[in-house]
Amino acid sequence: MSKIRIGIINATGYIGADLVRLIHQHPDAELKWVTGRSSAGQSLGSVFPSLETTEQTIMSEPDDNIDLVFSAMPHKSSTEIVPALLECGIRVIDVSADFRLKDASAYPKWYNFSHPAPELLQEAVYGLPELHREEIINASLVANPGCYSTCAILALAPAIKEGLIELDIIVDSKSGISGAGRTLSITTHYAEANENVCAYSLSGHRHLPEIKQELEMLGHLSPISIIFVPHLIPMTRGILSSCYAKTKINLSQKEIEQLYREFYRETPFVRITTREPHTKHVWGSNFCLIYPHIDTRTGKLIVISCIDNLVKGGAGQAVQNMNLMFGLTETSGLASLPIYP
Amino acid sequence: MSKIRIGIINATGYIGADLVRLIHQHPDAELKWVTGRSSAGQSLGSVFPSLETTEQTIMSEPDDNIDLVFSAMPHKSSTEIVPALLECGIRVIDVSADFRLKDASAYPKWYNFSHPAPELLQEAVYGLPELHREEIINASLVANPGCYSTCAILALAPAIKEGLIELDIIVDSKSGISGAGRTLSITTHYAEANENVCAYSLSGHRHLPEIKQELEMLGHLSPISIIFVPHLIPMTRGILSSCYAKTKINLSQKEIEQLYREFYRETPFVRITTREPHTKHVWGSNFCLIYPHIDTRTGKLIVISCIDNLVKGGAGQAVQNMNLMFGLTETSGLASLPIYP
Amino acid sequence: MSKIRIGIINATGYIGADLVRLIHQHPDAELKWVTGRSSAGQSLGSVFPSLETTEQTIMSEPDDNIDLVFSAMPHKSSTEIVPALLECGIRVIDVSADFRLKDASAYPKWYNFSHPAPELLQEAVYGLPELHREEIINASLVANPGCYSTCAILALAPAIKEGLIELDIIVDSKSGISGAGRTLSITTHYAEANENVCAYSLSGHRHLPEIKQELEMLGHLSPISIIFVPHLIPMTRGILSSCYAKTKINLSQKEIEQLYREFYRETPFVRITTREPHTKHVWGSNFCLIYPHIDTRTGKLIVISCIDNLVKGGAGQAVQNMNLMFGLTETSGLASLPIYP
Amino acid sequence: MSKIRIGIINATGYIGADLVRLIHQHPDAELKWVTGRSSAGQSLGSVFPSLETTEQTIMSEPDDNIDLVFSAMPHKSSTEIVPALLECGIRVIDVSADFRLKDASAYPKWYNFSHPAPELLQEAVYGLPELHREEIINASLVANPGCYSTCAILALAPAIKEGLIELDIIVDSKSGISGAGRTLSITTHYAEANENVCAYSLSGHRHLPEIKQELEMLGHLSPISIIFVPHLIPMTRGILSSCYAKTKINLSQKEIEQLYREFYRETPFVRITTREPHTKHVWGSNFCLIYPHIDTRTGKLIVISCIDNLVKGGAGQAVQNMNLMFGLTETSGLASLPIYP
Repeated sequence: MSKIRIGIINATGYIGADLVRLIHQHPDAELKWVTGRSSAGQSLGSVFPSLETTEQTIMSEPDDNIDLVFSAMPHKSSTEIVPALLECGIRVIDVSADFRLKDASAYPKWYNFSHPAPELLQEAVYGLPELHREEIINASLVANPGCYSTCAILALAPAIKEGLIELDIIVDSKSGISGAGRTLSITTHYAEANENVCAYSLSGHRHLPEIKQELEMLGHLSPISIIFVPHLIPMTRGILSSCYAKTKINLSQKEIEQLYREFYRETPFVRITTREPHTKHVWGSNFCLIYPHIDTRTGKLIVISCIDNLVKGGAGQAVQNMNLMFGLTETSGLASLPIYP
Repeated sequence: MSKIRIGIINATGYIGADLVRLIHQHPDAELKWVTGRSSAGQSLGSVFPSLETTEQTIMSEPDDNIDLVFSAMPHKSSTEIVPALLECGIRVIDVSADFRLKDASAYPKWYNFSHPAPELLQEAVYGLPELHREEIINASLVANPGCYSTCAILALAPAIKEGLIELDIIVDSKSGISGAGRTLSITTHYAEANENVCAYSLSGHRHLPEIKQELEMLGHLSPISIIFVPHLIPMTRGILSSCYAKTKINLSQKEIEQLYREFYRETPFVRITTREPHTKHVWGSNFCLIYPHIDTRTGKLIVISCIDNLVKGGAGQAVQNMNLMFGLTETSGLASLPIYP
Repeated sequence: MSKIRIGIINATGYIGADLVRLIHQHPDAELKWVTGRSSAGQSLGSVFPSLETTEQTIMSEPDDNIDLVFSAMPHKSSTEIVPALLECGIRVIDVSADFRLKDASAYPKWYNFSHPAPELLQEAVYGLPELHREEIINASLVANPGCYSTCAILALAPAIKEGLIELDIIVDSKSGISGAGRTLSITTHYAEANENVCAYSLSGHRHLPEIKQELEMLGHLSPISIIFVPHLIPMTRGILSSCYAKTKINLSQKEIEQLYREFYRETPFVRITTREPHTKHVWGSNFCLIYPHIDTRTGKLIVISCIDNLVKGGAGQAVQNMNLMFGLTETSGLASLPIYP
Repeated sequence: MSKIRIGIINATGYIGADLVRLIHQHPDAELKWVTGRSSAGQSLGSVFPSLETTEQTIMSEPDDNIDLVFSAMPHKSSTEIVPALLECGIRVIDVSADFRLKDASAYPKWYNFSHPAPELLQEAVYGLPELHREEIINASLVANPGCYSTCAILALAPAIKEGLIELDIIVDSKSGISGAGRTLSITTHYAEANENVCAYSLSGHRHLPEIKQELEMLGHLSPISIIFVPHLIPMTRGILSSCYAKTKINLSQKEIEQLYREFYRETPFVRITTREPHTKHVWGSNFCLIYPHIDTRTGKLIVISCIDNLVKGGAGQAVQNMNLMFGLTETSGLASLPIYP
């Protein structure tokens, strides 16, 4: 069988670079070209020395003769590129937020632009394989989820689907700094970010509407009241989410773990743990660890989940989606164990 | 006026060492001796080169001729030492948990020992100056609060005192690793703690009962349901707490800030901010920054607070208590600005 | 072809754990068992959650029916185990220092024990494939080099082999903290190691004699005067070595790069760079980057080299040696790109 | 006695901000105004929340009625401002490099500009109090040394002054990232700098000519061959320098320590240690620790020195210079102990 021919648009951000790494190592895919905005013409290795052995040159424009494009453009820019690719019959996995929300009216509010292709929002599949495997298999356009969203939705999905909790939820997330991308800012300047922790976006982070959308779908469309507060902590990779909600029925610790384990029985990357997981336990891998904990004292469910924000929260999940779209084993090219310590 | 004569018991942990630093620089106090367990006979500078210029030798036993002892013993050990000191007429600030809880029956449950001097629990004053200034002034025995407790109680005190929130509260805290002390453990081994975040003590952290005790006192003894989940993050100093509760009355953002500002009007170390604070903004100082935020979308109050866990969460607060006990300016010896970056 | 059957003795240190990771992912090797001292009987995943999917149980004793043992015992302990393995016809790659030095009299001096099997010192091959490929292919016992040694020897080998420099050399190395292993110590306690750099072992680090031994072999046995000063820096993985020596002949920058490139022409993991390399460019991979720089102002050669101390400086190099010993492609199981950022 | 009236030009970089911190706490100085380029009109606390309690507003232009200006402008910009200040009779401590080099012809080569006021280069005093105390006392213009320069010169001064070593020297320095300033760059982007070490400026760092100038003055103008290689390591503050040179005479370890101790007998901030110092031992303080080590095996002197790059390597040294210029105790306002851990 011939390899899937891949193009990556805008490979010079962190998710783009991690896509190159994963595709380069993938047994069933072949990287045909990468594009980059400011660095067109340079070798990819001159921007990312870790990728030098891929021997890719950064192109200014996409080329054709490919089966799949990963688009790693900033928000809004993807809407300008993706429709043309689809028209050429090229399947697309878009890692921006441009096709994640079903409700076009959310874009002006959360992303400050009016969506130019609202019809594609219905066609696009939200690329969380644990929830949408069948749709992804047949999709032309997959909207790869946000990093925070992946971590939070997976943590809460079983509890909401099974009606275990009241729909009044707190999600407190802690992310490594790479989640803020490669664009320079004072927030991500080393001397400011090191030895520091802060909450941000208290008035509403952009991943909130997609978390809400997906959880409400699971919850039979009952409206969910959810607070999502992200924090930046001084590490490069990893997200840990701590989720809190009141339980509606009495469950023992064993029962909740069993229920979660059952929910994710057929998913290769989600593992239910019996004690608090660490982000380091998934570093560099596509795993998501989830620890559901019943707090009998207060009648609450606490769920701790963690991922590598650039792998399961980005490039790895995109490759997982690719595997499903092209009939490969879901774990193909993603079997690397976490690197520890 | 002669200087307050100080002894420090067990100066070889992190809070003990920071007490030495602060007392050494204090204009109105004089460090007469320090003790240490395993390192008696050595110079303090050989254990902590940063303290070499203090020219202290670590003693094996406390000496007398002092006005105040800071006891930095591990839990349970303080109960064996403090009563004798008090009988000699020496005032004591104890940084362990041994005198923080009013209810003696809590000790077997949370600290695995039966309290040998329960009568002292009533006499001891919980050393949070922002709440107990008058009692501290006259106290013989001050129980210095836990680091997490300081950060959480200060964040929630105004809201609870004024009856603004429902008494069903989530406190999600993130702490630097120095909070785990100087005793070696795999959790605090560099290669395990770096580039990692984890939640711990989900089944109940020891600071929970003191947080509950103090908040219930403020809340006119109504029982409070509270979840407190601590997290370790890869930095040395700092705690940031994110607190969540449903509001009982409608308040604008301005009103909540005004109300918090009013509550802490006469406290020199608490500052109410108008945006999310960073732990780095208080690094090395005795400040506590608090940002109360009204989330109109969900009807919740979110409060973000932060401190340096070894200063306001430990040694600095102990010195603040000393200042009050001995009639000094509350900020004496504590005026250093945070070190940034 | 059937897979190489592997046993790992003492898999519960960092190099042992990284060996498990690499062997688990290796297409031509199969992990039959692992042993560990204190944690025998536990699952490997309970010690290292990142390795949970390997489904290994830690054994108390080695088993037979294997082709190769990786011994990751502490120094001296390997000498007690390896001879018996060799007698059973099992090939051994030992990651301790017990078989690295040819001169038995060096052991009492550098490692405080008298070597019980000096005859094996001549039989053992120093497992640096870039220098000893042919001998490794046929070896029964390979002594896997020290992490610092690998980085320093590869940096200097071309210059010494070609007689370019005077044999009076400074090697100043900077290592991440994982190099100090998993055993607890105050030096590797997070709060002490974070935001800190220090030199150590100025009176002589144990990797010095092997660096000297290998460089003197390359230098036709002329004695080499070498200072090696290791430093600990606050990161988990990586070693960077800065090497300084006076040049004996005039070389342009282009010529020195060309000469280094030529020397390593047939080695798949050494890459000569044209600007200063970063440890992050090799993180998690088996690469060694080397930048030779001619300082015309002072007539010196400066060589900067870097590796991942646990991969090319430990487990990866051991796997590379295994590949050679068993006739596999040298890069088999080691093709993963560095993880960046 | 009235306080010294201070103005700070460009207080919005890291050294400027640390000057504000130190002057604010100084018992004999009063901060009259600060200027900043882009943030004029804002409160200093809005740029640096750690400085909020200073209640300073950032001015667009310097004001008069002051005794001393600290100029923290970027290189070249100081030459445009300082002459006018001196003409108004205002004494100046300039933290840029604009007045550090005696040889005007070095500026085009090292700083890419032709010096517009070469006569001031002779008048300016190189502000390293340990070497130039008397001249600083009477100076109108003090050129505050570079951070690397301070650390390297103090390490080598006794050895060179006393003729102990051959004048062929290697200085290998490791710096925290704050040394690169507050201006954004990919090098100082958190995700790139964390978990990374690299050498840089191999072809010549700007602090080299001032190190050479000062050491040659000490060495009776014999030319010195010196290699200086700086490295960036993942921490915020601190520089550690490892210096290597061949000894000319036989000295025991005790003798070298004694000689160094004697050399710095009357300097309050330099401490000679008897084991390898850590940057953390000086964090936040104005101390410089120096450990001279005789390597009898190779006949070399190794000197390890360390400072806080923003304090003794910047703002603290500037305040030390101010103290000398205005007849204050040299340690005034600088007595804070290092913060540990």
